[in-house]
Amino acid sequence: MSATLLTHATVVTLDRDDRVLNDAAVAIADDTIVAVGQPPADFVADEVIDLGGRVVMPGLYNAHTHAAMTFARGYAEDLPLERWFNERIWRLESALTPEMVYWGTLLALVEMIRGGVVGFADHYFYMDRVAEAVTMAGMRANLAWAVFGRPDEAEVGITVPQTLEFVRRYDGAADGRLRAMFGPHSPYLCPDAFLARTAAVAVREQIGIHIHAAETAAQVQASLARYDMTPIEFLADRGLFETRALVAHAIHTTDVDLEILARKGVGVVVCPVTHAKYSMGVARVPDMLRQGITVALGTDGAGSSTALNMWAEMRTLVLVQRLTRQDPTVLAGSWPLRLATVNGAYALGFEKAGMIAPGYAADLIVVDILAAHFQPLHDVVAALVWCTQPADVRDVMVAGRWLLRERRLLTLDETAILAGFHDELARMLARPLKQFKAYAP
Amino acid sequence: MSATLLTHATVVTLDRDDRVLNDAAVAIADDTIVAVGQPPADFVADEVIDLGGRVVMPGLYNAHTHAAMTFARGYAEDLPLERWFNERIWRLESALTPEMVYWGTLLALVEMIRGGVVGFADHYFYMDRVAEAVTMAGMRANLAWAVFGRPDEAEVGITVPQTLEFVRRYDGAADGRLRAMFGPHSPYLCPDAFLARTAAVAVREQIGIHIHAAETAAQVQASLARYDMTPIEFLADRGLFETRALVAHAIHTTDVDLEILARKGVGVVVCPVTHAKYSMGVARVPDMLRQGITVALGTDGAGSSTALNMWAEMRTLVLVQRLTRQDPTVLAGSWPLRLATVNGAYALGFEKAGMIAPGYAADLIVVDILAAHFQPLHDVVAALVWCTQPADVRDVMVAGRWLLRERRLLTLDETAILAGFHDELARMLARPLKQFKAYAP
Repeated sequence: MSATLLTHATVVTLDRDDRVLNDAAVAIADDTIVAVGQPPADFVADEVIDLGGRVVMPGLYNAHTHAAMTFARGYAEDLPLERWFNERIWRLESALTPEMVYWGTLLALVEMIRGGVVGFADHYFYMDRVAEAVTMAGMRANLAWAVFGRPDEAEVGITVPQTLEFVRRYDGAADGRLRAMFGPHSPYLCPDAFLARTAAVAVREQIGIHIHAAETAAQVQASLARYDMTPIEFLADRGLFETRALVAHAIHTTDVDLEILARKGVGVVVCPVTHAKYSMGVARVPDMLRQGITVALGTDGAGSSTALNMWAEMRTLVLVQRLTRQDPTVLAGSWPLRLATVNGAYALGFEKAGMIAPGYAADLIVVDILAAHFQPLHDVVAALVWCTQPADVRDVMVAGRWLLRERRLLTLDETAILAGFHDELARMLARPLKQFKAYAP
Repeated sequence: MSATLLTHATVVTLDRDDRVLNDAAVAIADDTIVAVGQPPADFVADEVIDLGGRVVMPGLYNAHTHAAMTFARGYAEDLPLERWFNERIWRLESALTPEMVYWGTLLALVEMIRGGVVGFADHYFYMDRVAEAVTMAGMRANLAWAVFGRPDEAEVGITVPQTLEFVRRYDGAADGRLRAMFGPHSPYLCPDAFLARTAAVAVREQIGIHIHAAETAAQVQASLARYDMTPIEFLADRGLFETRALVAHAIHTTDVDLEILARKGVGVVVCPVTHAKYSMGVARVPDMLRQGITVALGTDGAGSSTALNMWAEMRTLVLVQRLTRQDPTVLAGSWPLRLATVNGAYALGFEKAGMIAPGYAADLIVVDILAAHFQPLHDVVAALVWCTQPADVRDVMVAGRWLLRERRLLTLDETAILAGFHDELARMLARPLKQFKAYAP
C-alpha cells in the first residue's frame, strides 16, 4: 500500500460543505483519500509533497466525448450540423480503422490529462482499443460502443451481441477504473424496435445506456411527427430509462421531459461549446438542477468542439446561461466546478469520486494558483472557474497514482503518441472516402 | 539597427490576402517587418530563430480594459451590474492610490504579455503611472484618463485641464508606442454640458475619445427618456464623434446607431465575456462588420471578466454570436483573429500594425502549435482560434523587441511585481472604504 501526504495546500473540497481550506493537508492511502485538513496522527507517508499554497481539488470528469475524434480536429469547421455530419465527419469516418481509434484516443488522453481530466465517458467505435489506451494511461472511463441498429451495422464493425460481450468484458476492468455501457446512437438514427430491444437487454443484464438526444429543435419536431412524443418521452416509453442512463445534450426539453429525467434518475451531459458553436441551442441547466437532475459537463469530440478543454466548457456554460436567462447570479460560486467534478463522476458511474473527502477516490489535481493570472485570491473558487487554463494543471492523480507530475506525463509517451497518431492519420487520409450514412433529424 | 530572421515558421499573415504560409521566413529590421515568405537576398540577421513549424502571427491588441483593476479580480462575482458597481467596485476604488494603479497595471501586463497581448487601450485613473508601467514593459498602449465631469471630480485626482496636459505629454511617447486620448466615462455618468465641452476641446486639439456607451437596455431607455436620443445618437449629437472615437461595449444599438458609427468611422470594442457574465446583452457584431465598422475585442477589467484572456474573448464572441443568430457560419475562419489583431491595432491608433506584412510594425507572437492539443493541423486558423491557451504563446515581440522569449519575461520582473502588488493591495484593503458614487442607468 502506498501513502502520499500533500501539505500546505489550498483545498477546494467540493464536498457537501463546499469548503476552501487554507494551509491544509490531504492524506492518500492506496487509491483513496483518507484524511483532509490534518493527517491522522499515525499516518506514515511514503511521499510528502509541499504544495506551497497551490490548489488541490477533485479532478475533472469529461462526461461526454468521442476521444478518438482528435483525428477530425479542425476538419469540419464553420458548418451547419447537417453539412458537418453528411459532408465531412461521416465521410472521414468511412476510412476509420481500429488503429486510428487507438492513436486518436491516446492523443486525446494526452490533452485531457494535461488539462486536469481524470475520467471520461466515451461514445465511439472499436472501443476495445479505447479500453487499451485508457488502461495504459491510468485514467478512469465509461465506455460505450456506438451502434445504430441498422442493416448496414457491420460497416462499423460491431453487432449487438458483440456490444454485450464488450460490456461484459470491460465493465469493472482495469482495477475498477473502467465502466462500460450500451451505446445506441440516438432516437433519430436508431430504429424504434432496436432501441426497445436494447433497453430490454440492458434492464435484464443491468447495463447502463449512453445515448444522444434532443440536440436540435428539428429533432424534437421530427420525433413529435413520427411518434407523437418528444425524444425524451420516446426514450422513456421504449424503456431506455429503466436502467442507468446518460443522455448527452438534452438541449430542447419540455417541463414534462425534465420531470421524466428527474424521476428516472437519468444523468444529463451538456457540451456548451458544441451547443453554441453549431447553433444547436441552450440546455435548461438551471431548471434541471432545480429538479434534482444530475447535470454533468462534456467536451463532445474534437471534431465539433475542436478542443477538449473542460475549463472552457465550464465558462461557456455559465456565460451562455447568464446571457440567455438575463440573470448574472445563475450558476454562481462553485456550481461550474461541481458539474465538472462530482456530477461528472456520478454520471460516469463512480459514486465515491469527485470530492476531496475521506473515503473518496484519490482522483485529484493540483492547480498552480500562484501564477500571476490568478492573483490576487479574493475568491479562490472564482479564480479557478474564470482563470484556469489547462496548462495551469500541474499534477494529476487517478486512483492514488500520479499520471502527471510537474507537468510531465508519467504513463504516456507523448512523442511516440504524436508520431503514431500522425502516421496513422496519413494512412487514413490516403484511403478512399465515401458517403457513409445520411443524417436527418 | 537590429535585424532578426524567423525561419521555418507557419505564418498566419492576417493581411488582406489572409494567407497561411508554410515553412516561411519573417525578416524584421529594427521595429518593422521587412519581408515575409523569403528574406531579402541582402538581409543580414543579428539573430536567426528556427521556429520548427510553430506559428508566427500578429500580436493581440486588447482594445478596452482597465488594466490596474487586477486588484479587484474575484472581488465582485455573481452580481447584477448595479450591485457590482455600487456595492463592490466603487467601494473598493474609494481606497485607490496611484501606487495601486502602478502595481495593478504591472500585474496585468505580466498576464497580458504571457497571453500574447502586444498592446491595449486602457481607461482608468492615475494614468501617468500606467504610462510608466507600459514604458518599462515595452508594450504599446492607448491611454485614457477616466473623468466624470462632476463637481466631486477632485476625488479621482484629476481635472479636465490636467487630462489635456496628460494627453499632450504622453501621446506619441515611448518611441511612439504610447497614444493618449480623452476618457469621459460615459453618457450615463457624465453631465451633458461636460461631454459637449470635452468634444469641443478634443476636436480643436485633435485628440481622440475613448468612452463607454450602450451597455444595457436600461441605459438606452434612460437616454431616450432624458434626451429623446439613444446613447449613440446623443454622443454624435454632442460632437464626440467629430474626432477619432472608441466606443466600448455598444451592445444595444439601433440600425440608425450603426449607420452613425459607420459614417463617423467610430471604432467599437466589444468585451464578450463581461457582456455575457453580467447578462448585459449581445452586441450586433456581424451587422457592424457588414456596415464597415471597425470592431475590436477587449477583455474589460479583471474586476468584471476576472481574466485578461483575449483567446477566451475570441471564442466567447463567436459562440455567443452563433448561438443567438442561429447561424454556425457567423465569424468563420480568421474573423476572430482579425478582430483581435488588425482591428485592435487600428482601434488603438496604430495603423501600420496588426498584420504580418512588409512595412508593418514588428508586433508579433509565436504560438507553439506543435503541442498535442493543437494536433492535427487540418486547419491552422481553427486550431489557433479554438485551441490556444495563453500559455501556448511562447514568444512576444513588440516594435522589434522581444518581451517574452521561451515563456520568460525579458522586460518585467514577475517575482518583484507579485510582491509589490500584494504589499500595495494589503495597504489598500487596510484603508477605510466608503460609498463613492452611485451607478444608475
